[in-house]
Formats: sequence, C-alpha cells, structure tokens
Amino acid sequence: MEQVTVSAPGSVSNLGSGFDVLGFALEEPCDALTLRFTDTPGVRLVNESPYPLPDNPEQNVSGVVLLAVLQKTGAGRGFELTVRKRIKPGSGIGSSAASAAGAAVAAATLLGSPFSKLELLDLAMEGEVIASGARHADNVAPCIYGGVTLIRSLNPVDIIALPSADLHVTIVHPQIEIKTSDARAVLRPDVPLKEAIRQWGNLGALVAGFYRNDPELIGRSMEDVVAEPYRKALIPGFDAVRAACVKAGALGGGISGSGPSLFQFSRTKETAQQVADAMSHVYQDLGIAHYTYVTRINPDGVRVLETS
Amino acid sequence: MEQVTVSAPGSVSNLGSGFDVLGFALEEPCDALTLRFTDTPGVRLVNESPYPLPDNPEQNVSGVVLLAVLQKTGAGRGFELTVRKRIKPGSGIGSSAASAAGAAVAAATLLGSPFSKLELLDLAMEGEVIASGARHADNVAPCIYGGVTLIRSLNPVDIIALPSADLHVTIVHPQIEIKTSDARAVLRPDVPLKEAIRQWGNLGALVAGFYRNDPELIGRSMEDVVAEPYRKALIPGFDAVRAACVKAGALGGGISGSGPSLFQFSRTKETAQQVADAMSHVYQDLGIAHYTYVTRINPDGVRVLETS
Repeated sequence: MEQVTVSAPGSVSNLGSGFDVLGFALEEPCDALTLRFTDTPGVRLVNESPYPLPDNPEQNVSGVVLLAVLQKTGAGRGFELTVRKRIKPGSGIGSSAASAAGAAVAAATLLGSPFSKLELLDLAMEGEVIASGARHADNVAPCIYGGVTLIRSLNPVDIIALPSADLHVTIVHPQIEIKTSDARAVLRPDVPLKEAIRQWGNLGALVAGFYRNDPELIGRSMEDVVAEPYRKALIPGFDAVRAACVKAGALGGGISGSGPSLFQFSRTKETAQQVADAMSHVYQDLGIAHYTYVTRINPDGVRVLETS
Repeated sequence: MEQVTVSAPGSVSNLGSGFDVLGFALEEPCDALTLRFTDTPGVRLVNESPYPLPDNPEQNVSGVVLLAVLQKTGAGRGFELTVRKRIKPGSGIGSSAASAAGAAVAAATLLGSPFSKLELLDLAMEGEVIASGARHADNVAPCIYGGVTLIRSLNPVDIIALPSADLHVTIVHPQIEIKTSDARAVLRPDVPLKEAIRQWGNLGALVAGFYRNDPELIGRSMEDVVAEPYRKALIPGFDAVRAACVKAGALGGGISGSGPSLFQFSRTKETAQQVADAMSHVYQDLGIAHYTYVTRINPDGVRVLETS
C-alpha cells in the first residue's frame, strides 16, 4: 500500500452533563485526508482546504501526529499529506481533532495497522497539544473509537465506548469567534457540592440512556449546570435557539465543545430538519451568518475510504 | 388478604463515585415486617427487634409511612405492624430505609397494590424524614426498585434502575457511632471543578460497568474523591481495611452511606469471604467489635414472604 484516503469526522465534546468527559463523532461534516509514502524523509503538507493551515509540520496538527508516527516507527521514508478540510477551525465541532485523528489512522493504515486504539489516541492527542496547548481527548476519543465515548481518566488513559443511541443530530455553527481563553475564564474554579451532585446524577442517567437507547432519558439528562449557564453568554441567541428547538420537537442539546456551535438531538430526521430550520430562523433574525448540519452519530469515527 | 409479611433489605448508598445518587439493595441483612388489618383506626406497633424503637407511630419510621398510607387511601380500618429488625440502626446500611420501604410495600400489598413504584418511593421517603430530617431516596430507592438504582433527580423524582452486575458483596460494620451531623460537617461545601470532573468521569464509567457487567470497570470506577477522603477520618482502621481488602482480591469499595459500615465488591463468593476475614482481622487487632456480611446485590428489594 502506497496511499490511503480517510474521512475524519467532526465531533461534539462536552456532551450535556458530560462536561469534559463525554463526546460523540458526527457523520457530517468530515475532512478528507490523503496520505502517501515519499522517498524524502519527514512530512510534506499539501493544503487543498478552503482554510489556511500551517505549512510547517511542526506547527500543523496533522503534521505533528505524522512526525510522532515517524519517530515511533523509525520509518526511513517520509509522508506527504493532502488535506481537504470541511470542518472549519474554531467551530467547536472538533476541527483539530479530525486533523489529528485522521492523520493517526491514515498513517497506521499505511504502515499495516501496528497501533492499538489506545496508541492511536495517544498519537492524536499529540496533535491536540499543538491546537489547544493541552493533551485532551474530548474530541479525538470519539474520532478514534467511534460513536459516543466516555473519558473515565486521562492518567492513565481509560476510554469507554458507549452504544450509539438511535438519534438524529442537528448542529448550528454561527459564524462568530469564541476565544478558548474566554470560554475557560467564565467557568467557576469550584462547583457547589449540590450542583456537582446534580451534574453527576444527570451524567449517570445520560450514560444509562445510551445503554437503554432511550431518547427521552437522554434528552432530560442533558442538563448542564456547570458550563452552559456561564458559557451561553458568549453565544448570541443561545436562549432563543434553545426555545425554538424545544418548540420544534428537539429532545435536548447544548453547546458543542466550548462553542460557538450548538447541537440538539431529535428522534427523527424530519424533526432534526425542523430543528435546523428553527435554528436558522433565529440566526437570520439576528443577522448572523451560520451553517446547519442535519446528521447522525457516527458509530465508526475515522473511516478508511480508499487505499492503493 | 388480612396479613402480610415482607422482607426489607439493608442497602448501600453513596456507592463509590456515586455520592448521593447511586445505591444498591443487599440480600442480607434484612428486617422482617408483618402487617395486619385491625378494626381500630390508626397504627399500632409491636417491636420484636433486639433494638428499642419508638412506640408512637408518629415518631416511628414505619409508623409514619403507615399513617401516610391510611391518610392517602382513607381506609376505615387500622394497621398493626410487628417489626423484627435485624439491620441495626446507625449502621450505615439503610436501617431506617428498610423500615420505611418495608412498611410501604406491606401496606400496598394488603390494600391490593394500589400504588406505583414512584408512589411507594414517595411514601417511604416520608419515613426517611423522621429518621434523618430530610426527604432522601438514597436507600429507599434500591429497597423499592431493587438492584442498583441511580437518582437522576429528586425534583421531580426520577429513578433509573440499573442492571445488577454479577458481583459478591462484603460488608463490615464496626460497632462505633458516627453522628450524621459530623459526617455532613466534614464535607466541603464546594468541590474544585477538576475533582468534580474526575468524580463524574468515574460515575459515568461505574454506570457503564453495571450495564456491561464488567467487574474490573466497576472496581476501578469506584474511586470517590468527594466524600471518602474526608469521611474516612471518622472510621478507625479505614486505610488498613482497604489495604487488607485489596490484598485479599476485592475489586473496590468504600464507605456505605455515611458509615461506619464499609463495603467491598468481589468476583466470587470465596474472595468475598476472604475479604470478610481480612476486614475482621483488622478490627480484631484494633479491638473493635464488628459484624461482617458476605452477601450479594438483591435484585428485588423488598420481597413479600407470606400472605394470609
């Protein structure tokens, strides 16, 4: 095998009451990454995305992952990666995680799959360090494991893949920028014990909801009393979007990652489409440009599309 | 039907990382409660327990529940309840919850089961108010629903019955007294966000562990960073017991309720017995009288033993 193309999905982290521990992969949007061996050592990047990306592999999320693979395997040859991003950086739906996890899976596929899922996750987290300054797994875990993932612990890394419930997902990405530093600064360093208990009561119920494939239970367990009440101030139209989504029949949702994208679960594709329309109306009225996606939970994560 | 006898089980609340939300019912110890109709209105209590209990039904946990049933149903007749308690009050394994839930199920059985589980829970919580001053469901929920229960919310009440994993349980009850006020006073009113996240990562994994029937996952998800580090100081021998249990092969455990009883899960009955021996040795060395129980998760909760 000399060349592989993978599809690397967007993902939702901070899933409702699962702040910092629960996330899921999306069927759409996805990046496409094509990786081939070259006779020149090192990593060469070709950007065919509508967005600028760092050319220097040491500053590029995918590049860092590929360099780590080369170092780990001691491969004499190099890699050339062609990136066609569709997940806009800064959208809050795991753009950097797709670049990182996609590069890790593509490289592993070219090399004959020498890595466990835990090793792939570890490699992908290297890419997240470049993107956000921290080794976090919130978005790379669902990209590597697929479906809905729970991070029990990062030290040691312990990821639990949950069953994907039969849900439809609507995402709206208002074209505004939220600085990660702002999203962090608004959170309280301490949580009142009563609120923390409420959060983990909901989180436990949310996990149960996925095992039971119970959309109603998932919906009412989404409540987040830790991040959402503080971060929603950074997202114009948040309350109006939520009210419109509830009216359109959505089960529940929240902020994707640290925003600005918002997500909602629905029982049917028709409802999910109506939820998208409701989201759109709010942002049209506010005069804020936005994209919507009507999609599903992606049970596979990064997929190999083509090898040659 | 004129008379019913029920078995009302002990229970473990504050199950590991599930502080205030997760609990389970025990096969042993259990109280036995016999309830019969009388022609005299009101509630008469007969105590055949080795422990003193209030005679006045308005001050007695079971009595309060039975009075609430009479008020709810407007029954013209009265109740006579004979109580044979085996779960020592103040043990931390749900003595008052057994009295409350047992009385609720016994009364419902005599009346032809007019109540839903949620109504039974509501009645039993009336009894817990007399015992602890608060309407809490930590122990009555597993008594009513059986097995392992998660309290998502108390307002509105939302209980999720989880599957009972294939586990053996060891309990040790050192004969010391912990005041509920002390157990509450040592807890911090606020939890650092990082610790709260660690707690709900573990709690989510614990719920997943029960669905997957995965003893190892259950064991490593028991970690409680919120209550145990503070409450263990109230229980002599805590660290020595834990170390001895790990050495004997236990999967994980913690403080039952707010103590003083401690519990541990094991894969097999043999290991659970060795864990009991290890617990006993520690308390023998400390010169502290104690009981141990080698038992299982009770999937049914309160059971009707006999009707006539």
